[in-house]
Amino acid sequence: MKIGLLIIGNEILEGKISDANTRQLSLFLKELNLELQTSLIVSDQESAIHLGLQTLFLICDVVVTSGGLGPTKDDLTKDAIASFLGRKILYSESSYEIALKNYERFNRPFVEKDHGYCFLPEGFVALENSTGFAPGLFTKHLGKYLLCGAGVPKEFKSLLDDHFNRIIRSKFPPSSELIESVTVRTKRTPEEKIFGEVDPILWDQLSDLGNVSSLPTTMGVDIGVKLKASTPLEMEEKKKKVLAIFENSPLKPNIWQIGNLSLEEYIVGLANKKKITFGFAESCTGGLCSHRITNIAGSSETFLGSVVSYAEAVKHKILNVEADTLKNHSAVSIQTAGEMSSGLSQLIKAKIVISITGLAGPAGGTPEKPVGTVCFGVTNNGRTQTYSAHFPGDREQLKLRFSQAALFYLLEELEKSS
Amino acid sequence: MKIGLLIIGNEILEGKISDANTRQLSLFLKELNLELQTSLIVSDQESAIHLGLQTLFLICDVVVTSGGLGPTKDDLTKDAIASFLGRKILYSESSYEIALKNYERFNRPFVEKDHGYCFLPEGFVALENSTGFAPGLFTKHLGKYLLCGAGVPKEFKSLLDDHFNRIIRSKFPPSSELIESVTVRTKRTPEEKIFGEVDPILWDQLSDLGNVSSLPTTMGVDIGVKLKASTPLEMEEKKKKVLAIFENSPLKPNIWQIGNLSLEEYIVGLANKKKITFGFAESCTGGLCSHRITNIAGSSETFLGSVVSYAEAVKHKILNVEADTLKNHSAVSIQTAGEMSSGLSQLIKAKIVISITGLAGPAGGTPEKPVGTVCFGVTNNGRTQTYSAHFPGDREQLKLRFSQAALFYLLEELEKSS
Repeated sequence: MKIGLLIIGNEILEGKISDANTRQLSLFLKELNLELQTSLIVSDQESAIHLGLQTLFLICDVVVTSGGLGPTKDDLTKDAIASFLGRKILYSESSYEIALKNYERFNRPFVEKDHGYCFLPEGFVALENSTGFAPGLFTKHLGKYLLCGAGVPKEFKSLLDDHFNRIIRSKFPPSSELIESVTVRTKRTPEEKIFGEVDPILWDQLSDLGNVSSLPTTMGVDIGVKLKASTPLEMEEKKKKVLAIFENSPLKPNIWQIGNLSLEEYIVGLANKKKITFGFAESCTGGLCSHRITNIAGSSETFLGSVVSYAEAVKHKILNVEADTLKNHSAVSIQTAGEMSSGLSQLIKAKIVISITGLAGPAGGTPEKPVGTVCFGVTNNGRTQTYSAHFPGDREQLKLRFSQAALFYLLEELEKSS
Repeated sequence: MKIGLLIIGNEILEGKISDANTRQLSLFLKELNLELQTSLIVSDQESAIHLGLQTLFLICDVVVTSGGLGPTKDDLTKDAIASFLGRKILYSESSYEIALKNYERFNRPFVEKDHGYCFLPEGFVALENSTGFAPGLFTKHLGKYLLCGAGVPKEFKSLLDDHFNRIIRSKFPPSSELIESVTVRTKRTPEEKIFGEVDPILWDQLSDLGNVSSLPTTMGVDIGVKLKASTPLEMEEKKKKVLAIFENSPLKPNIWQIGNLSLEEYIVGLANKKKITFGFAESCTGGLCSHRITNIAGSSETFLGSVVSYAEAVKHKILNVEADTLKNHSAVSIQTAGEMSSGLSQLIKAKIVISITGLAGPAGGTPEKPVGTVCFGVTNNGRTQTYSAHFPGDREQLKLRFSQAALFYLLEELEKSS
């Protein structure tokens, strides 16, 4: 079964927002052992929507659209689909009832029967929208399936969760072929060095077992191997072989996870398992380390808190960094970094504290300490070590890299602590 | 001139990463008064790349590709383009020289002449890549233009910055038609209420002047009007009329900006202009408010710092929240919120401090205080007010909404302070 996504929206083509629904649909399909064939973004114009439908119906069995079902006049999806399929727009009682229910759920006044939500292209089925207002749509066309949802990511996701399976499975029963991906996440070695120097035979070895991919990430590379098998036993055998290849690879010390957890998920899982409390003394990362960690449910078990000490006075006043240290070594120095992490560790009684102080730019760099310079303090159980580094990038990239490096230090401390 | 983007990469169709290059290209084109026609994502397979090229060459004058130029074996773009155009892959001295220069820039060992970077489809020009390793590519095909860049967003951006204009402008001189967009950013009223109740004639009034769009944002709506004119004078007249419509609209109190700055950019600009210092006492937002503010260059002028007080002990110990307050009212209460903001304000001597304490879930909710409950403390010049609210959403959505509400409080305090 080939599945294509048509994203309808000027706001995406004009760069006002980024498309989030391709990724949502991909991850949703992966759970069902299905793959997204292609994703196409077109503008809110009838001709563009027609062209998109034409392209996708040519190569796909199931076309999913996102966007353009809303109540404002730039929402053209229903009209464009109707004209593409040569169907009329008709009043639909079930669509009316769904819209009515949605309004009640949000305690919003009654929707009138002349509201756009109550009209559908002929032959379409209205679908409940459990998270928003606009009903979804479904129809069959020349033996193919067309499923339309709202563009708001949350609403699009609920269309998938609530309706996709039920509708699609009737026509396309699950394949008996098993598909599984093994992801090996590595740190601190660039892609080309991995396959060129560290382990030049790795790619070919893995290719004998499945489809290999390499994805550079922040300060690391994810190596993926997609395995296919006809029985669970065969799959297990293949997975064992993949893992054995990595176990014996010179790349092994760089592997920090075999699996799909994000770095922050992995850290929170490990800290909670070992019951090790931690926190951050953040300067140039400005709260990003803490934000990333607190995105993970359950982080409150071991993450105690952080201080974002942007101003020097805050470094001194809350974190107890000596005025002399700031004066003699400056705020971006291993001395300040060390006092920041040990200061916070004493203040909040966290076992591990990582501090980050650096220059995210664009202003503030000097020839000795250019933008991108960063110092880390790592306090674990009262003992403090410091590190310094220099990274390339603009302000947002630097914040991300600084935070990634800090999280890798945290991970390494968690790994060696008990 | 019609421009299309072909994004080549399994990692995007499999949901491992989100596409960032559509947005980059859109924003780049906007600066040049150009528009992106469509954006298509295909997998790293020769047949899929062929189909993508075929589709885009059908409707576009300029096709830009991103991805698949790297050094690993899943990078197929050059081979697929060569076979699509019926061209051979040949050794290119200029491509070799560009790759060599790139390696020197990164202090990486010399690239050999048999490296994939040194080969191009026949008739292609190699383009310097000022931020990465893989040279970009350019050729003409049946009077149309094909420009290929690396998928890494930073490298793709440098392809545009360094080469797009020079190459494209030779064939397509700038249009004399002026295009400008006015964006009016509103808060705290949903889209449908704006156009249905608050100002039902707004859309039609604006439509007489240009192309209207409505984009729901976090806790607000951006209304855009795209204006076209043949002279600067005509454009000025149209802009004046648009602004007059909003000036006289009942929506006016909800407008927080006429322009394209993000909320955090707008806040930092205003705080720096008024020289008003501020900080956050963050609990459930976990550092996100601080992270958003510190993404903005120049934020260090007035943003002093924050405390992420995730654990109750940190609220008590650093922010001076009374143990009795935590015990009698709990951590998620307007009492705790008020003591958090006033405590931090005294500690770091910031004029304005906003505190946020709430339940981001998924665990921790009760019937009285369900997940989504949030309390805010707003301390301005020593005076503290508190607010509470309830928002829908999952953990990440809630963190974002909580932070957005906090930033709106900060904005309102900045607006009324001098």
